[in-house]
Amino acid sequence: MSGTEIIVRYAETDQMGIVHHSVYAIWYEAARTDMMEQAGYSYSRVESEGIMLPLSHLECDYVGGVKYGDRVIVRCFVEKLTIARLVLGYEVRRKGEDEILSTGRTVHAWTDTNLNMINLKKKAPELFNLLDNIK
Amino acid sequence: MSGTEIIVRYAETDQMGIVHHSVYAIWYEAARTDMMEQAGYSYSRVESEGIMLPLSHLECDYVGGVKYGDRVIVRCFVEKLTIARLVLGYEVRRKGEDEILSTGRTVHAWTDTNLNMINLKKKAPELFNLLDNIK
Amino acid sequence: MSGTEIIVRYAETDQMGIVHHSVYAIWYEAARTDMMEQAGYSYSRVESEGIMLPLSHLECDYVGGVKYGDRVIVRCFVEKLTIARLVLGYEVRRKGEDEILSTGRTVHAWTDTNLNMINLKKKAPELFNLLDNIK
Amino acid sequence: MSGTEIIVRYAETDQMGIVHHSVYAIWYEAARTDMMEQAGYSYSRVESEGIMLPLSHLECDYVGGVKYGDRVIVRCFVEKLTIARLVLGYEVRRKGEDEILSTGRTVHAWTDTNLNMINLKKKAPELFNLLDNIK
Repeated sequence: MSGTEIIVRYAETDQMGIVHHSVYAIWYEAARTDMMEQAGYSYSRVESEGIMLPLSHLECDYVGGVKYGDRVIVRCFVEKLTIARLVLGYEVRRKGEDEILSTGRTVHAWTDTNLNMINLKKKAPELFNLLDNIK
Repeated sequence: MSGTEIIVRYAETDQMGIVHHSVYAIWYEAARTDMMEQAGYSYSRVESEGIMLPLSHLECDYVGGVKYGDRVIVRCFVEKLTIARLVLGYEVRRKGEDEILSTGRTVHAWTDTNLNMINLKKKAPELFNLLDNIK
Repeated sequence: MSGTEIIVRYAETDQMGIVHHSVYAIWYEAARTDMMEQAGYSYSRVESEGIMLPLSHLECDYVGGVKYGDRVIVRCFVEKLTIARLVLGYEVRRKGEDEILSTGRTVHAWTDTNLNMINLKKKAPELFNLLDNIK
Repeated sequence: MSGTEIIVRYAETDQMGIVHHSVYAIWYEAARTDMMEQAGYSYSRVESEGIMLPLSHLECDYVGGVKYGDRVIVRCFVEKLTIARLVLGYEVRRKGEDEILSTGRTVHAWTDTNLNMINLKKKAPELFNLLDNIK
């Protein structure tokens, strides 16, 4: 997975002069969207089939600050998949650099549109197998 | 209408050290929510009755900057009401001060949940009369 | 100016199912950043020279809603330039389509880092001429 | 500590109809601001003394969704304090209810304005003792 390129927006900075920490969760989500689209099953398609993927857990580690105008690459990868849950990992780097600026993890539940838990393998076996294969 | 008190959040600042201009639209919306609740017809009730109020126009004038930790009062008032549209005005002041820091205006269309225009007076006469009276 | 491509983020939607109106100001800003970079004088360079460009006025017209996953092109152009002010215009379209979904305008003052007005032609003649030429 | 009351903003929801998960970090920050102000040493004062408190770690657990118009109480408390770091905990409840909707934790480094680590006990003993006492 090549990762998602983000150009840091002015509105994403705060008065400390670096990107506000809450923004990384939004970048992770953009990378998550891309990862699923590149995997061949867009998140919009997932939702259109009545499957929701609400977050139950988020964690972010911040190593280095990111500034307005920086170009960063956010990589999203499947850490763990079960019939009930999806665990994704994230790495943020400045474009063209190896140094990791942030790592993250999100845990998601597979639910229906009423946010009740579902068994993904039964409800959408194609999606389950696809994510299982890129793990 | 007494207005809505907002305590400026750190995340609302940018690297210029003042509140980012996009945030005012969110404050106007908080004041709009309060205005309707104080008027006796909450926006949640409006939506639950299948009426949406999407914005068609937004304008903001910024006179003075607002800083992290400032307490501001945002006043929202009905400028104009028709069966098809609602025009609201806004004023932002630091709490306890007269000087206006920002003025704004939003224009909304009355629509159904498919975002098709409706005639508010027919669809929800109570709401129409209520807003007409506080104009 | 070719415009800035934006992939709509999930966090940018609201419960109406479309992009929240406050987000457009952030997209305009991303397009403004690109426009200046493409013009050869990045906004980061402007700020590093002690010149700030705070907004004094914002207006947005919303014609059509934009959804999660949509790709939009935001075009930013110089409407008017004086020694004291910069007026920029914006157009938002879905990628590959002609229909305009939103138009906007921002008015900026040229200031020093204390947000006091400056004469741009004196302070940064190269920048003034460059923007004057692409008007 | 009585906690910080937040009225959920429309812009804070996403198309799932609940508050976007990235928003909780902003609420935690509002509660953190309040906690320090109630403790008698506002975060603005901290920054004005050249002390910054960047986040190095964030984690959030989401148990129940929160909707537009809900009133929530966010409680922030000191979990751990050292000369180099501050660990804070958070709990989110609907106002007047006991059920926890979200818990969180943030880890902060004490730094100067260049984001270099400092020894808080030496640099600001009053602040260190104050936070140590409410632990």
